[in-house]
Amino acid sequence: MGKKYVYLFSEGNAQMRDILGGKGANLAEMTNIGLPVPQGFTVSTEACTRYYEDGGIIAQDILDEIAQYVSKTEEITGKKFGDPANPLLVSVRSGSRASMPGMMDTILNLGLNREVAEGLAALTGNERFAYDSYRRFIQMFSDVVMGLPKSSFEKIIDQIKAEKGVKADTELTAADMRRLTDEFLAHYRQSMGKEFPTDARVQLIEAVKAVFRSWNNERAIVYRRMNDIPSSWGTAVNVQAMVFGNMGDTSGTGVAFTRDPATGENRLYGEFLMNAQGEDVVAGIRTPQPISALKEVMPEVYTRFTEIASTLEKHYRDMQDMEFTIENRKLYMLQTRNGKRTAAAALKIAVDLVAEGLLSTDEALLKVEPRQLDTLLHPQFDAKALAAAKPAAAGLPASPGAAAGRVRFTAEDAKAAAARGEKTVLVRLETSPEDIEGMYASEGILTVRGGRTSHAAVVARGMGRCCVAGCGDIQINEQEKCFTVDGQTVREGDSISIDGTTGFVYIGEIATAPATIAGDFETFMKWADEKRTLRVRTNADTPKDAQQAIAFGAEGVGLCRTEHMFFDADRIAAMREMIVSKTVEQRKSALAKLLPMQRQDFEGIFRAMGGLPVTIRFLDPPLHEFLPTEEGDIQALAAEMRLPVAELKATIAALHEFNPMMGHRGCRLAVSYPEIAVMQTTAVIEAALNVAAEGIAAEPEIMIPLVCDVQELKRVKKTVTETADRIIAERNAELSYKVGTMIELPRAALTADAIATEAEFFSFGTNDLTQMTYGFSRDDAGKFLKDYYEAGIFESDPFAKLDQTGVGQLVRIAAEKGRATRPSIKMGICGEHGGDPSSIEFCHKLGLTYVSCSPYRVPIARLAAAQARIRSELG
Amino acid sequence: MGKKYVYLFSEGNAQMRDILGGKGANLAEMTNIGLPVPQGFTVSTEACTRYYEDGGIIAQDILDEIAQYVSKTEEITGKKFGDPANPLLVSVRSGSRASMPGMMDTILNLGLNREVAEGLAALTGNERFAYDSYRRFIQMFSDVVMGLPKSSFEKIIDQIKAEKGVKADTELTAADMRRLTDEFLAHYRQSMGKEFPTDARVQLIEAVKAVFRSWNNERAIVYRRMNDIPSSWGTAVNVQAMVFGNMGDTSGTGVAFTRDPATGENRLYGEFLMNAQGEDVVAGIRTPQPISALKEVMPEVYTRFTEIASTLEKHYRDMQDMEFTIENRKLYMLQTRNGKRTAAAALKIAVDLVAEGLLSTDEALLKVEPRQLDTLLHPQFDAKALAAAKPAAAGLPASPGAAAGRVRFTAEDAKAAAARGEKTVLVRLETSPEDIEGMYASEGILTVRGGRTSHAAVVARGMGRCCVAGCGDIQINEQEKCFTVDGQTVREGDSISIDGTTGFVYIGEIATAPATIAGDFETFMKWADEKRTLRVRTNADTPKDAQQAIAFGAEGVGLCRTEHMFFDADRIAAMREMIVSKTVEQRKSALAKLLPMQRQDFEGIFRAMGGLPVTIRFLDPPLHEFLPTEEGDIQALAAEMRLPVAELKATIAALHEFNPMMGHRGCRLAVSYPEIAVMQTTAVIEAALNVAAEGIAAEPEIMIPLVCDVQELKRVKKTVTETADRIIAERNAELSYKVGTMIELPRAALTADAIATEAEFFSFGTNDLTQMTYGFSRDDAGKFLKDYYEAGIFESDPFAKLDQTGVGQLVRIAAEKGRATRPSIKMGICGEHGGDPSSIEFCHKLGLTYVSCSPYRVPIARLAAAQARIRSELG
Repeated sequence: MGKKYVYLFSEGNAQMRDILGGKGANLAEMTNIGLPVPQGFTVSTEACTRYYEDGGIIAQDILDEIAQYVSKTEEITGKKFGDPANPLLVSVRSGSRASMPGMMDTILNLGLNREVAEGLAALTGNERFAYDSYRRFIQMFSDVVMGLPKSSFEKIIDQIKAEKGVKADTELTAADMRRLTDEFLAHYRQSMGKEFPTDARVQLIEAVKAVFRSWNNERAIVYRRMNDIPSSWGTAVNVQAMVFGNMGDTSGTGVAFTRDPATGENRLYGEFLMNAQGEDVVAGIRTPQPISALKEVMPEVYTRFTEIASTLEKHYRDMQDMEFTIENRKLYMLQTRNGKRTAAAALKIAVDLVAEGLLSTDEALLKVEPRQLDTLLHPQFDAKALAAAKPAAAGLPASPGAAAGRVRFTAEDAKAAAARGEKTVLVRLETSPEDIEGMYASEGILTVRGGRTSHAAVVARGMGRCCVAGCGDIQINEQEKCFTVDGQTVREGDSISIDGTTGFVYIGEIATAPATIAGDFETFMKWADEKRTLRVRTNADTPKDAQQAIAFGAEGVGLCRTEHMFFDADRIAAMREMIVSKTVEQRKSALAKLLPMQRQDFEGIFRAMGGLPVTIRFLDPPLHEFLPTEEGDIQALAAEMRLPVAELKATIAALHEFNPMMGHRGCRLAVSYPEIAVMQTTAVIEAALNVAAEGIAAEPEIMIPLVCDVQELKRVKKTVTETADRIIAERNAELSYKVGTMIELPRAALTADAIATEAEFFSFGTNDLTQMTYGFSRDDAGKFLKDYYEAGIFESDPFAKLDQTGVGQLVRIAAEKGRATRPSIKMGICGEHGGDPSSIEFCHKLGLTYVSCSPYRVPIARLAAAQARIRSELG
Repeated sequence: MGKKYVYLFSEGNAQMRDILGGKGANLAEMTNIGLPVPQGFTVSTEACTRYYEDGGIIAQDILDEIAQYVSKTEEITGKKFGDPANPLLVSVRSGSRASMPGMMDTILNLGLNREVAEGLAALTGNERFAYDSYRRFIQMFSDVVMGLPKSSFEKIIDQIKAEKGVKADTELTAADMRRLTDEFLAHYRQSMGKEFPTDARVQLIEAVKAVFRSWNNERAIVYRRMNDIPSSWGTAVNVQAMVFGNMGDTSGTGVAFTRDPATGENRLYGEFLMNAQGEDVVAGIRTPQPISALKEVMPEVYTRFTEIASTLEKHYRDMQDMEFTIENRKLYMLQTRNGKRTAAAALKIAVDLVAEGLLSTDEALLKVEPRQLDTLLHPQFDAKALAAAKPAAAGLPASPGAAAGRVRFTAEDAKAAAARGEKTVLVRLETSPEDIEGMYASEGILTVRGGRTSHAAVVARGMGRCCVAGCGDIQINEQEKCFTVDGQTVREGDSISIDGTTGFVYIGEIATAPATIAGDFETFMKWADEKRTLRVRTNADTPKDAQQAIAFGAEGVGLCRTEHMFFDADRIAAMREMIVSKTVEQRKSALAKLLPMQRQDFEGIFRAMGGLPVTIRFLDPPLHEFLPTEEGDIQALAAEMRLPVAELKATIAALHEFNPMMGHRGCRLAVSYPEIAVMQTTAVIEAALNVAAEGIAAEPEIMIPLVCDVQELKRVKKTVTETADRIIAERNAELSYKVGTMIELPRAALTADAIATEAEFFSFGTNDLTQMTYGFSRDDAGKFLKDYYEAGIFESDPFAKLDQTGVGQLVRIAAEKGRATRPSIKMGICGEHGGDPSSIEFCHKLGLTYVSCSPYRVPIARLAAAQARIRSELG
């Protein structure tokens, strides 16, 4: 016997989600627990996969099986396809494993033709109902299956309503419905050049194919990519006997949630419409009534519905989102699923369900999507003010939250404005490391170029600043300090508002409110912390970041990037002096100026972390990033440094690299200029000793970046330990510190056994590791990755979600080899992936010690780490 | 009992090279076969390694063992350290596993002090000899052990000779030698602030330490890097009882080869000096006599020596390089080793030894260093003319051979001059892909910037053009078309000569001679071809390259880079038109212009290869490489293309990438612009069908570059096969072709199992794979790699010699995974490593199908492949 592709509802259950899809599995489950569900069958997701494998056709064996299940459904319902005396009509709906908007709409009333419509009219004694159903079916089938727009049918309805001088569809008579049907069929014939299909079996197969096709429509692909849903999953098709909410005033249809999806409050929430089919509720032609009104309209049905809602919530142990239809006072359940909810509601529902004894804390922890917490941690626009505002442009939602303020076009201007106490939005063509202070001083950042992994986006997320990136809708004139958008010109000092969660840009200032953290949040996160074994650290370059992260529950600093400390106006001069030095002595003298500043930075961070471990990465970027590029800036620097302009230009030119990402950076700098490592070590160790005097037991972990060979690390480590041990001895003090490395080059991962002979810890720099493993640079890949998504080559962004297939192999190899050499080696991950739930789960499975992420992702990581452990215990 | 660190000569043998070093092992071997060797002992290489492990001290157990072996040597020789009545004097020489110039010089006569010198004078009745020996010892010890320059002693000798009015050292009397000794001791005391050591045991230990230290002097490190010798090998120290060639006219010393090392001719070749110590022969103060003259001077010694030479050659079954000393008519052998020889001599000796029955062909194949063959394949300077010329500057020897011609400063000028029949040397600050035609038209290329893996170097080696790169000695003025060097100005049209084997640059034209291939070469290569299982293909972008490679024995094209075909003046216009296209239609129209040109290229290559397989790589570099960068060129292009300059500039700016190596290139281009792949496929397939009509069964292998995921390859392959199959069907023809991929990104290697489901062959692009695995770009690494060599972090250039530790792991993983999916998959390697012997051996071990290298490396690869098989059979 061949593979089974079709299942009666009574053959399935809720566990069969993978092959029946969510909707199909739940219809089966409701059938099993004895709820009133119109019967039918589900064509499995495997049939969809097979459809694509077979090149876009449904194979004969599947067609045969569908025909067989149509017969079974006819038996069960006692009705027959195409039988005017007792016709079987069905709905056809898509349903994939994960809930997925953007896929095919529902087709209702399939099975109708003129004879059947006449039969239905006779059978129900309701001609209007029969033809209303028929015309709806023609309209839906034409739109969804044949691509003939729904609006072209709406025009015909509008004409007839105008002729008759009526406003509502319900005012149309049976004769009007007949006429509509005739005109719809004529419109179809004219547009498609053929007759509307009359055979119910042909209608059904065309509808099934349309569902399969819709799995790969553009909206579905985009949605899948944004939600990490593999295209290989496919969608199922649910074929269900119709029940009719449009049989008159004793019929109706509605949707409801068992709890309020916005707040989580425990009360039935939803709406219904009498004498309507499902689509009317959402279409907005008539205004639905709140679900509570059903109590008056049809008390016995309402009571039955509340019973069913309660049964379902207890059965699924989660808030349910349900669809129902009332046919002649009889209630039918058409769908149930775990309801979508806001982050605040998710937390409240999870905590309440535990209190109600329905869930264990482990189960409750799995009910909240970690990413959702993000919305609770950033300022938001006032909801009413936002509803009244119209977006002037849309960019990429690059860093969440809302910001409103006066526009500034340079980092200096933004900084100066912020110093005057002005709320500022920094608008740039694109940002560079020199802009960091200005970004920090601003409420939000808007860029014209760059993607969600551009400099602006990455830095803004790290700082918890809202950012809209790559907003090509605006034309910027940096010289005149203005931009135009949507026909309007916005000048320096004008107000705008940007929403980093949606990507929308508004002209004018929309009020914002700071994030509020409900009491449930704390309870919930305590459960997460009790559960997880993976530690969560933060990436923090300043004491302020470190404090924010501590407030969000960080357990140490996993990545402190020292280079950001050198971009301050009073520091960059000394940094530049260091870079253009011709001799070791000149370089040492410039470094001596940087030492006290850097020491002070570290003291601040050590104090903020109050004895938690702090991993400090030594200077990493290519030196030319610190040098000016504009003619004017170069001349100013030359004057400042008392150098001939030509000589400075020659130095800058000599530092030029073809591929700076793969150039003279990371530990390569410390190999060429050991004096830099000496200065940085001195700053770290002296800072740790200074705060130790205040009673804070700092635990510095010095991290050498971009190591490709153990010999490199050995050499730089020697510089570090000699310097550190000398200082500690000179002060006659004691201090425990560690020296470790980033594993961010493929060769470091492949030779991790050798590297672990020197490294006391590993930190996986998966940003660079991803770049090198794929061979594309984050800065440049934006240009072609869109082609990759469109072509379905990539389904997700490897910079956002760790590529476990390729990059993950290297992480695993390194973890295994590192442990083989040094069984107790501490291992963590830093960079964007440290805040990504699926990547965190991978880190938990590999037994890493910690993940490190930006302060605003710390709560997400805490929850993801707890979920990872729960899932691994479930096996 | 502890580890043994010291061995008497009689305890060792030739197989103990690893611990005794080459010199020590051969002294032991000569002792064992009964030749007259002054006895002594060897301190092992393991003692040297231990010396470094212990932080630069000789551990007490080793000191004790040396003392014990001094006593044993005293017993064997019947002489005693420091005994004036019968003194033991010794020589101390370094000797590592591989012959290594640049290490410590010899110290002779160790054990002398004033008392011993007096004793020696009494014993030999030769006061002059005794003090001559003493003053030589002071001089050598001071120089080698204490760093007091030899020249400071030579000055004292010169003064005395001047005072006495004599010219030769031999004219100095015994009294003069005494006086010299006194003055040398005084000079030492004055310079070092202490007395010259008088205790023979102290002298010995200091000398041993000096040998150990010399293992890590700068020259030794450079030599090791150039010759792939690991620093972990260490050096041994040979301590040998002195015999004296300076005991008067019945004594002497010399060096000789059993065959002529320049030509391989089977006749004794060497020279000797009477009344001299070893150093005098090479010092050039007196002119030595040819070895044949020894027949007259001392016939019985000559006969004995020829017997020994013959014995040694037969024993070692190779040409020997020997040192000997005659002490009072008695012959002593001080050293033997396999002699260095020219490539021509190596071939002749190998072929002769087989003919003489001394070697099997397998053994003969191992006697020739594959790299050496290189010198036989390029034009060379006339030896006499070269001897008379003085280098004006030195750069890096980047591509071997010699070139002389008139200087041109631009690729266009070089091309035009070559077209006029002029011999040209192209001089550039650095080269770029636009210079390729000019490089091809030139005899040689000289660049001011860039290393041995710069664009100029790589391309020149590929073309077989001589190249001197990174010649910082010259100051170039590109605008005025001249350069200055060594105080002279060389203008456009002036003649220079460059030697790509030495890196020297000469002003004026030195005559060159084309390479001649002796008959032995052919015989030898036939043996190699019979032995090897690894196929050797060539990298060839033009029919001319392909023909050259066929002449050198290539068995197919492993890499035909199609982008080089687009830089011709008549093609770049169409290429640029393609790049700046705004629509698919514009792009197709530009591609249509390129199609016939590319088809013609492929036809030429298919014809040259006469049915051998040809692997064609599709367009690989980022598109902006084809666009002009200079203002004038941009304006010209804009005019040519009838585009506003601003628009063209915007297009060029939009194509700018931060890290072009990791940008929009390789198969990413074919994903974004499938029409490029369609054009290239059309050109390949039509060309193959056209030459098929001429009776040549071309076997095109289409190679998709820079794949990181199987989905990419799947998509591009679909474009290729649809196009190819359509053309073949339209012509109603048959053609077998393959589609495969480069494995040049770490992720491709890690996911090779998936990639092999689509790829019909793999070609390892180890250049890019090395870049990505190490995370440094070949273009930029030159800046810091010198620091790495100096610090001993890297011992060899990973772009020249495949890094088997890291990159090799990826190659192995990919080979294993690829075969797991597709057991018969064809696998090869292309790029620089394909011509490197150690990398070729690695490929043989992995069971790859072929290596591909530049035409001029094909014979090297053929020999290396044969040697790899022989070595693997030896186990």
